[in-house]
Amino acid sequence: MQKNRQTTIIDIAKQLGVSPSTVSRALHNHPSISAETKKNVLALAEKYSYQPNLLALSLLNKRTGIIGIVVPEITSYFFATVISGVQDMVSSAGYKLLICQSNESFEEEKKLLQDMALLRVDGVLISPTFRTKTFDHFDRLKSAGIPLVIFDRDCPHYKADKVLVDSYDGAYQAVEYLIKTGRHNIAHIAGPIAFPTFKQRLDGYLNAHYDNNIPIRSELIVYSDGFSSDYGVDAFVQLIARNKKLDALFAVNDAVAIGAMRVIRENGYRIPEDISVVGFDDESYAQYYFPPLSTVWQPVYELGMLSAKILLDHFASKELGERFRYEILKPELVIRESSISLS
Amino acid sequence: MQKNRQTTIIDIAKQLGVSPSTVSRALHNHPSISAETKKNVLALAEKYSYQPNLLALSLLNKRTGIIGIVVPEITSYFFATVISGVQDMVSSAGYKLLICQSNESFEEEKKLLQDMALLRVDGVLISPTFRTKTFDHFDRLKSAGIPLVIFDRDCPHYKADKVLVDSYDGAYQAVEYLIKTGRHNIAHIAGPIAFPTFKQRLDGYLNAHYDNNIPIRSELIVYSDGFSSDYGVDAFVQLIARNKKLDALFAVNDAVAIGAMRVIRENGYRIPEDISVVGFDDESYAQYYFPPLSTVWQPVYELGMLSAKILLDHFASKELGERFRYEILKPELVIRESSISLS
Repeated sequence: MQKNRQTTIIDIAKQLGVSPSTVSRALHNHPSISAETKKNVLALAEKYSYQPNLLALSLLNKRTGIIGIVVPEITSYFFATVISGVQDMVSSAGYKLLICQSNESFEEEKKLLQDMALLRVDGVLISPTFRTKTFDHFDRLKSAGIPLVIFDRDCPHYKADKVLVDSYDGAYQAVEYLIKTGRHNIAHIAGPIAFPTFKQRLDGYLNAHYDNNIPIRSELIVYSDGFSSDYGVDAFVQLIARNKKLDALFAVNDAVAIGAMRVIRENGYRIPEDISVVGFDDESYAQYYFPPLSTVWQPVYELGMLSAKILLDHFASKELGERFRYEILKPELVIRESSISLS
Repeated sequence: MQKNRQTTIIDIAKQLGVSPSTVSRALHNHPSISAETKKNVLALAEKYSYQPNLLALSLLNKRTGIIGIVVPEITSYFFATVISGVQDMVSSAGYKLLICQSNESFEEEKKLLQDMALLRVDGVLISPTFRTKTFDHFDRLKSAGIPLVIFDRDCPHYKADKVLVDSYDGAYQAVEYLIKTGRHNIAHIAGPIAFPTFKQRLDGYLNAHYDNNIPIRSELIVYSDGFSSDYGVDAFVQLIARNKKLDALFAVNDAVAIGAMRVIRENGYRIPEDISVVGFDDESYAQYYFPPLSTVWQPVYELGMLSAKILLDHFASKELGERFRYEILKPELVIRESSISLS
């Protein structure tokens, strides 16, 4: 046998004078192969430290042991944590994860799903771009027998397994709490409302006002094009320029909240005495901010675990039915010192 | 031809009465195949929307178009940003990225590299666990013809392509700056010094003292087992309990710094008037912290891009030489309001 080359099924077959397919079946304990042959094959496989070529195996098994995941971006704490949950779940089931980011490009998303189909991944988890409005690329995956689970971002008109966080509920909880502490002039820095998630947070803000008979004042709402801290700075500069009375801020996420808080402070307002602030996400730094930031915690790791679990269930059942799982996880309001307490 | 099944090379071969290998060669424009046959094959491939099976192709080409990357964890801003740099570089070259995390487990790292070899990835980028002290698993990859680039964490006794950030230099810059602002009682919260990166930051702290003739006081150094904000809290509680004079803190990273800053404030010290604070990493929240956090910025995205570039260069040169690239990227000190300025 050559040096520096891995032993193959063909090498073992030659040496035993049987067919490669016999060797392969023996290695997989196929019932048609005699105990004697199995013993001989296993002995040689051990002798030469035979390693199965997963790619070749996948052609026989139609299984690669790879799960694909497509996220809009991996540098956010949110998606990195989702991926961590997915990975812990799929690793324990013996799967590897192929992680790709679409960078919010619909074209890239289509290309990635096509690549994954060509690679014959066993299943796909996807958080679609906010520009994803048609779903032929999802249908093509399904018709190739590859199950798909959508997570975090809803595609309201598309039927599929979905695992989402109830952003509406989180926003509603936050704003209702601010109202109950006596703050009735609550500003909202909204994210790009093309993202269903951000639209839901805006809706939670609006409905909490409506249900509590607090008039909604449009001059207290800023619609941002982005959702990093820079946007928080710009948005609060706009709010101050409007020179309207405000005593609280519900920011679309923590990053925007801390950007806004810098402007709040620079303009001489005290947090929370003059302005209560609540964010969304409970980023790792939120509790260490000064003052510690009230925010909405999301079960992000659990979101990843559950999405992966639903995909693994598909592999076990081997059927792609027409009944879909639709799971909504509940966020929780976390009160810290950036907002005044209920008295 | 069956419905709901992708056309294969075998289907095309049967229909034309040639061998599958002829079809494959025709599709890859092999010189041994006649122009006539190529034309017929391409016509049928187009008619049936033939898609090459990447796995099958990879068995012929010995190329999968997949690059593996192993990081200790993906939920940190640092590694997520490295991955982003890697992905932008390899995507533009047409490669896909298989991302795996070792969770600081040496056993898991070995297993992941073995899986990647079995999957026949074209190359591997790895940031080893801090427990990685032997390198047989790296050697096995190389002898299987799979090039390897080590990034961020050095393996001092192992020869390979490496791309690192000069943590020593960043720490040295930070501490020397504190000394020059007149602060001579500088505490250091060190990370686990089993990580070469954290050891280098400690060395930078020590040597900046030595070079500037400032005595080193061991009671101002706390050795932490971890490097999240909680450890910053605990470490600064220890420093206060020691009841020693201190006028500055150099924390091993920003997360530890903001944990410590909470304790500093709770104990009635002013930042930076009483205690200057400098972190490391320039996390996205550092500039929005109150007061904005002085820190050491690292070229993290560039680290990812360069590591990927070196791997791609290997594919182009097709040789695994004995000469290795060793690239050290320089960090930069960023002064903000958490530390007093040079007067």
